[in-house]
Amino acid sequence: MDREALLGPKRQLEALALRQAGELLAGPTGVGVDIELMADINIENETFVERNFTAREQAYCWGRPNPHASFAGKWCAKEAVVKAVSSLDLGCPKVWTKGDAAPLDEIEIVIAASGAPEVVLYGDAKAACAKAGVRQIKVSISHIDSFAIATAVAH
Amino acid sequence: MDREALLGPKRQLEALALRQAGELLAGPTGVGVDIELMADINIENETFVERNFTAREQAYCWGRPNPHASFAGKWCAKEAVVKAVSSLDLGCPKVWTKGDAAPLDEIEIVIAASGAPEVVLYGDAKAACAKAGVRQIKVSISHIDSFAIATAVAH
Amino acid sequence: MDREALLGPKRQLEALALRQAGELLAGPTGVGVDIELMADINIENETFVERNFTAREQAYCWGRPNPHASFAGKWCAKEAVVKAVSSLDLGCPKVWTKGDAAPLDEIEIVIAASGAPEVVLYGDAKAACAKAGVRQIKVSISHIDSFAIATAVAH
Repeated sequence: MDREALLGPKRQLEALALRQAGELLAGPTGVGVDIELMADINIENETFVERNFTAREQAYCWGRPNPHASFAGKWCAKEAVVKAVSSLDLGCPKVWTKGDAAPLDEIEIVIAASGAPEVVLYGDAKAACAKAGVRQIKVSISHIDSFAIATAVAH
Repeated sequence: MDREALLGPKRQLEALALRQAGELLAGPTGVGVDIELMADINIENETFVERNFTAREQAYCWGRPNPHASFAGKWCAKEAVVKAVSSLDLGCPKVWTKGDAAPLDEIEIVIAASGAPEVVLYGDAKAACAKAGVRQIKVSISHIDSFAIATAVAH
Repeated sequence: MDREALLGPKRQLEALALRQAGELLAGPTGVGVDIELMADINIENETFVERNFTAREQAYCWGRPNPHASFAGKWCAKEAVVKAVSSLDLGCPKVWTKGDAAPLDEIEIVIAASGAPEVVLYGDAKAACAKAGVRQIKVSISHIDSFAIATAVAH
């Protein structure tokens, strides 16, 4: 429904200006989704765990009823964050300068007071997001039997 | 690419002010994702169905080619809405005051004219969202053979 | 937490005005999610491939280590875009005038410099999105063994 076609030319110009102001003010919203087979997240590999999960995350996951599911969920959340930030400025090749080999422990996923996951950034990841103009990242996680999934939005 | 570094100091200040205004105006965007095995949504349990689905939802789902998939999709959508709203204000512990035991029939998922799902809130869920400053919730649903998934954004 | 209750009546009015300005400026954010069994995306059917994927997409997918997964991921991304745009204006029945039978090659998914997928619109899809006031669409894709998933946001 082209609502603006119902307006006069002056109102159409005003609506256009408002849209452009909104674009400028709100900026883009990035999205990231990641799904992983639990079997692909090898939590018996200590090097893998140390490299990708903070001490706080490890303590949390090992204390959960299903540690494997918790680690897999956090892994997906980290990957979804990377993807959401990478989708913000599609023309920029260098948000994550270390590429696929980067350890993911600089993107920490903790549980906030509201019960939702909260993203805490450190080091290079924090600097990269600041440089990319990221003001906010939210993430959500879910699991079923053999895999986990997470979705993130950034703006 | 740190575009702002290319600007003079006055323009940098203006860009900062614009970003802050955008943050203030647009507010945070919450995200929620939920995935469920169809087998975990027991629609033969009448108490479960009555407690979590409105009369309108039940009529819709039973009239679909695959009622089980439809119920599972709506369940995921409700859970995704709860998660998206909970991610808006991470410091606030009380968006959903009844916790996990809350019936989900106060978050109704109907099909809008556009074909997309529409979220209609009632009672405590409506009050909780108003209190949390939620202005808009959108949700999307998909299924494959044995499970359903939904993603919601709130702001 | 009803923060505004802590403000005086004048500040409450100001906060309300700011929220309404934000709503006006930022507009709604639509969301779409799609999940598909790889087995349901029959890339041996040439008509199906020609109808739904651009030459550039076909070249990209056939050149990937797992073409089937790549085609399935792009298919999910296209469907997620359709859903995200349809969720923007729930009262509008006609964003995609051709309905389910529409070929999806007018919604092209390419890989941007940042590594994230980028949505490029053509023909009717481009016109429909312009009419619906869509300013930006972002999408993210993930796969595991037997299926692919994508999530899109539009505003």
